[in-house]
Order: sequence, then structure tokens, then C-alpha cells
Amino acid sequence: MNFNLKTNEKGNLSIGGKDALKLAEEYGTPLYVLDEDRIRDNYRRIYEAFSTNYDDFKIFYACKANTNLAVMRILEEEGSNIDAVSPGEIYTSLMAGYSPERILFTGNNATNDELKFALDTGVRINLDSLSALERLSKLPGVDGQEISFRVNPRVGAGHHDHCITGGDLSKFGVMEEEAVQAYQKAMDLGFKPVGIHSHIGSGILDPEPFKLAVQTLMDTAGNVYQELGVDFEFVDFGGGMGIPYEPQESILDIKEFSEEIVNLYKEKLAQYNMDDPTLCLEPGRYIVGDAAYLLARVNTVKQSYRKFAGVDAGFNTLLRPTMYGSYHHIVKATEPLAEPTQKIDIAGNICESGDLFARDRCMPDLNEGDLLAILNAGAYAFSMSSQYNSRPRTAEVLVQKGETDLIRERETFADLLAKQNIPPRLL
Amino acid sequence: MNFNLKTNEKGNLSIGGKDALKLAEEYGTPLYVLDEDRIRDNYRRIYEAFSTNYDDFKIFYACKANTNLAVMRILEEEGSNIDAVSPGEIYTSLMAGYSPERILFTGNNATNDELKFALDTGVRINLDSLSALERLSKLPGVDGQEISFRVNPRVGAGHHDHCITGGDLSKFGVMEEEAVQAYQKAMDLGFKPVGIHSHIGSGILDPEPFKLAVQTLMDTAGNVYQELGVDFEFVDFGGGMGIPYEPQESILDIKEFSEEIVNLYKEKLAQYNMDDPTLCLEPGRYIVGDAAYLLARVNTVKQSYRKFAGVDAGFNTLLRPTMYGSYHHIVKATEPLAEPTQKIDIAGNICESGDLFARDRCMPDLNEGDLLAILNAGAYAFSMSSQYNSRPRTAEVLVQKGETDLIRERETFADLLAKQNIPPRLL
Repeated sequence: MNFNLKTNEKGNLSIGGKDALKLAEEYGTPLYVLDEDRIRDNYRRIYEAFSTNYDDFKIFYACKANTNLAVMRILEEEGSNIDAVSPGEIYTSLMAGYSPERILFTGNNATNDELKFALDTGVRINLDSLSALERLSKLPGVDGQEISFRVNPRVGAGHHDHCITGGDLSKFGVMEEEAVQAYQKAMDLGFKPVGIHSHIGSGILDPEPFKLAVQTLMDTAGNVYQELGVDFEFVDFGGGMGIPYEPQESILDIKEFSEEIVNLYKEKLAQYNMDDPTLCLEPGRYIVGDAAYLLARVNTVKQSYRKFAGVDAGFNTLLRPTMYGSYHHIVKATEPLAEPTQKIDIAGNICESGDLFARDRCMPDLNEGDLLAILNAGAYAFSMSSQYNSRPRTAEVLVQKGETDLIRERETFADLLAKQNIPPRLL
Repeated sequence: MNFNLKTNEKGNLSIGGKDALKLAEEYGTPLYVLDEDRIRDNYRRIYEAFSTNYDDFKIFYACKANTNLAVMRILEEEGSNIDAVSPGEIYTSLMAGYSPERILFTGNNATNDELKFALDTGVRINLDSLSALERLSKLPGVDGQEISFRVNPRVGAGHHDHCITGGDLSKFGVMEEEAVQAYQKAMDLGFKPVGIHSHIGSGILDPEPFKLAVQTLMDTAGNVYQELGVDFEFVDFGGGMGIPYEPQESILDIKEFSEEIVNLYKEKLAQYNMDDPTLCLEPGRYIVGDAAYLLARVNTVKQSYRKFAGVDAGFNTLLRPTMYGSYHHIVKATEPLAEPTQKIDIAGNICESGDLFARDRCMPDLNEGDLLAILNAGAYAFSMSSQYNSRPRTAEVLVQKGETDLIRERETFADLLAKQNIPPRLL
């Protein structure tokens, strides 16, 4: 099993040196627990793997995975840059202490106001369409503005089903065959193109589709360089580096991955006689995915037509299992490595039949009151949570070397009524 | 088309007597617009249909569909009761002016604290499991407490694929074959059983599966009555009455539906020699589903490998199309009845490939700046929305006879940072 599970002297799950049972008692459940050192380790592992092979390497943390300010601060300290997909992410990054030049804004279907917001804050702007280019060009003060384009490298579902944000069906980017035209147009409009970008998908554990995307983007970059003389300061291959969610999945060998990617990158630079642009990646899940746990307590064991263990979290807390059918490994906090004795459904507390964290999951004996830990709950977890069923959103705790900080307070019922006004005639 | 679309003298979409374009200008987009009269009409239509056929009839509005306080107030004025699935919904209902006896709490995997909360507020308690019964019995002051049970009538996916919250796979309720035992146990523990409840699913446009559930629940109720002498004050068949989302879907004939259900109900009461318990239903979608529109503006028209119109809302705003693949009809606000001229994807602004409101949708010509209205956005719409991609949640406006009230203010960037604390060492 590749889950890096730690136990303490009592045999209980230990997160960042703190007993999971103590955390649940102290802060209540459901509870997200983030392991600071694991975030730092993940960042350093990928940074070192690539920078060893290529000096001029930068990470742009895909903060949509987890925008908690403490996480943002940790990665700011580590030297990360930020991949921001919305004005709200730009705002959050600036509030977390990133200078604008460390933030690359890649909008999708950005409005004029959003483009203006990005321009006014001084962040780098990566354009997703010709429409955005043209609309940006009409804003005041854009002459000489540096831009890049997100290119859809047409590597997508056809090649590998993880690669879903590139390819023919994708809404993202400019088509690879219109890239030269897009850069030409940008220059005609007075912009200074400085980069090129792609992002082919998510959860990639195998270098092959990623290599194909690198190859394709580099061919596009090479064409733009040779045809228009655009001297790229950076090439950004986006994110997508996966983590194992299921026990039998293998860990991405990041050293080998980095060598293969960098070798290919260098080959392509040589082939097109390009200078040495900064190589950029936008990992999100890879950095925070396995660095958090969702603690939830079993309150109901029910023998219905099937057997259920019901917990005090639901798909409003962690959407991935219900929305994507994603597997999240679940362990009992008092014996995280116990052998399974049964198959059971782990159900949430939301009033929808799809609200299950697991169907037919092999688990040890479960009793009411048992604490469960749902693994790999650091990425696309809290950030996708909602107040559905009028459930206040949960708290988040950061743990480091046995010390804890409450980094997000639990919402209260009052938060459900925030921003609402009842018209006087209805009072 | 069954969408009740109204246009004004300019040919623009009119919602509650107000021009959709004016609403978008005044309040910005994306924007939820709720039509007060439509909510009242829907409530009255179903209330009248059933109460005409059966005097002692009550509606328990399934507020998980839409818990906006103004909506709750409107339905309070109409005389509705509330189906609450969580303590937060109990809280919201009480704040909206419902007395506790008008609130039926049906938890799923409720914790002891949640059961105590329900008890302390004095709402009616509908139990979802024997576990909840036993745990409730250990709380102080429960002697003589009135309770009911949610029964899983085993009518489910096997009979009709809409019926997903009943049946063998469902996490809800006690099994029909253990109902007698459950009521016996409740009495042994000193409770006073007063009701019986089931809920078989959602989006039902055809009376057949619902009738089957009525029949099954009444057989269970009859058994409990005959074996234990439990004299039910109410029988609650839950919700599930659907609305047409697709143009070719038919409207549920609520008069015919009510006649069939009530006739069957009366037959079953006679068959088991039961008194005349209150007949209860829990519609949610039926009351609010078609009473709201999501207004979103096209900012990007992109010819990629496919054609896309990109708007300023995303699946964080309206989750159903991405999560369930749900069809939502979309019209151009300036010509809601225009003939289609093209097939196009309507894409949101979230950085995920699945963030589409429609794929290959037949639409009239679309240009940047056009306002779109996404129909049937009253149920499971705002209530499932999130801040994913750091997007502040949207505003809601209530319209009645051409007058508007901002019933929920748009969130700001500051709301994204709410409840967060950065540990001092990370500052």
C-alpha cells in the first residue's frame, strides 16, 4: 500500500505526529486535517527532481486544488509560484503574500471585467482564446503587455483517458493549428508574447501521454519561434501529475518522469534552435492531494438490504466519490492497517442516494462511534465543498510535528443565513 | 414546449413581469432570478389537487431544494409545513417563522447531537434507522416522545429508474419487513409512534412507481396497525413529483395524479380498517424547480475543434448538468422562442473539462454579450452551489409583479477568506 500511513504507540493513525483520535476529540468531526511537512515534502520532491535536470525550472502551484491561506503560505515559503484560474484565486494569492509576477492567470471564458482585474493587479496573463486576446486589447494601458497562450495540443481522450482537458472535446485553449496566427495577432495588437502553455489533464500516473503533450506543445512553440521569431521566456506544460488513490496504483516515479520530460524538452529546444526558456509545471494534486485526511465518525451501523456504516460527513464535505465515482481509501483510525473482515457501504449524511463514500468496501469491523479517516483529501476536497442540505462547512486543522493550528473555523448555522435579506412584505 | 416562457413587448424574456435584460444590468451576472407568483402557483396547484380529494392533507416542503429565507417565508405564508433533513434546515425553518410542529425532521445518519438538537427544538422526528431509535431513547426527556419511521418500501431502481431512494441499494429507512419490529421496539422504549413515511425518489413524471410505493407503504402501515394497534396520525409518502426539464417531456397531470393516489390511499385505509390519517407529501422540485432562472452572459464565442459559447457561470453555480448530466433548457433572453440555427456547446468558466451547461445544444445565433437564461434553476441549484475555483457565490433576486428584491447579496472576495486563520509562524 502506497499511502504513507503512520501509527503511534497506541496503534492509532498519526497525522503529522498527532493522534487522529485526539484531533477528532479536540476539534470535532467532520474535520479536514492537513499535514504541513507532507505538503513541503511533496513540493520539494517535484522541485528537486526537475531542477536537478534543468536549472531554470519553476513550479506554479495549481491553487484550485486547495486555496486555504495556510497552504498558500507554506508554498509561498517554499518558493512556489501560483497558477490562478479566476480573479478570486488572484485575490487569494495576493493576500497570501505572492507578488504579482509569481502569479500566472489562466482564465477560461474570462469576462472583460476579469481581464481588467488581472491587468490591474499586474499578474501574468495566459490567454485561453482569441476572444480573450481581442477583448484584452481594448482595455486601456495594454500596449507592450506580456502575454502567453494556452494551446490545446489535441492530445486528449483519444490517446489516454486521463487526458481530458486537451483534445477535440475540450473547451480550453487555442487550437494548435491556429497558434502561429494567434501569436501574430497578439503582436499586431501590440502585445509582447513571452510564453506558451498547455494542460492536458489530471491524475496522470504514466509519463507517456504527458510526453506526447510536451512533444506537441514544443512543436507548436518551435513553429511560432521559427515563423514569428517569438523568443519564449517560458514554456508551461501545466499539471496533471497524479497520486495513487487506490492501494494497487503505483506512485509516479518523479525522478524518472522529470528526466524523460526534461530530455525531451532539451531535444525539442535543440531541434528548433530555441534559447533555454524557463520550464514551468503546474502541479496541484501532486503537492496537496495526499497531505490531508478527512476525519468522520460512524454514528449508524445499519443492516438494511445491504450493510451500511453511516458517518457525519457527506458529499457536501467531499464531493469526489459521488460526483466522479472517485475511489478514496478509508481506514479506521484505531487500526489503520487492520485486515478487512467484511464488505460494507460507507454512507454520508446527505439526503441523496448517491451520497456514499464507498460501495462494497472491504473494511475491518465497524461500530458506532468509530473514527474513520478518508485518505487523499487534500486536493479538490474542501475547495469543492458546499452547504448543501444546509450543512455548515467543516473546519480545517494544520498539523506539524505534533502541534496543531485551527486554520479554518467550522461554519455555524448563522453562516447559512449570511447575505440573505427577506423583503419587508414577507416578514 | 412546456416551459411557461413569457416575453414582453420587446420580445425579451420576462420573469415575474420584469425584463431579464434589465435584471442582468441592474444586478449583474450570473444571477438567480426567482418568480414569487410561480412558487405560490405551484404550491397552490398541488395543494388544491390533493385537498380537493382528501380533506386532511398537508404539504411538507422539501426545503433542501431551496432554503432561501424568502422562499421559506413565501411558503410559510401559503401554509406549508417543512421537510427538514438536517439541523441546519431545522434552524433555517425556525428562523423563517415555522413553528416546530410544522417541521418534520428526517435525518439520515444523524448523530446523537443532531437528534438532541431536534428534540430540544420540539420538531417532529422521523427516524431513519433502528440505530437512531436506540440512540434517541438514551437522551433525557424522551418518554412519550412522538416519532415516526421512514420505511424503505423496496420499490426502487428495479421498477423504475427514477425511483432511486427506495430499493435494495438505498441507504435510507428501515426495511419494510422490519417495520413491525421497529414500531414494537419504539413502544417498548416508551415512544409514541404517530406516523409512517417513505420517499422513493425524485423527478417522477409518471404515477405508476409512486402508486406502487403508496401501495407498499400502506400495506406496511396496515400491518403495523393490525399487529400493534398503532393508530397513525399521519402517513407521509415523501416527494418526487417531477417537472419537465426537456422540451418533449410532459407535465405531470397533478389532478389525475392526486386522484389516483388518494383513491388508492382510501382503498388501503378501508382494506386495513384504518382511521383517516393525515395524508402528507413532501414536494420540493415541484414547487420551486421551474420558478427560477439562472441568468448568465456569453463572454466568449470560440471556434475550436468544436464551437463553444462561454458564459460567466460555472458548475460551482449550477452543479446539476456536470454532476448528473442533467438537461437544463437554455434560451437567449432577447429571443427566447427563436428557432435554432446551430449546435453549440455552452461552457462555464470553471477550470474542468466537464464544466459544460450543454453539449451540442440547438441554439439560435449567439454572440459575445448575449444574455442566456438557464431554465428550471429553482431546485437543487443555489442550494448545491460552492466557491470552487475561488468564485464567490452568486446573488439571488426575487421578482413579483415587476418589482424586485435582492434576497441574497453576491459574495465578495472577502467571503472566500472567511473563517480562515493563518498560524503566526506562517505569517
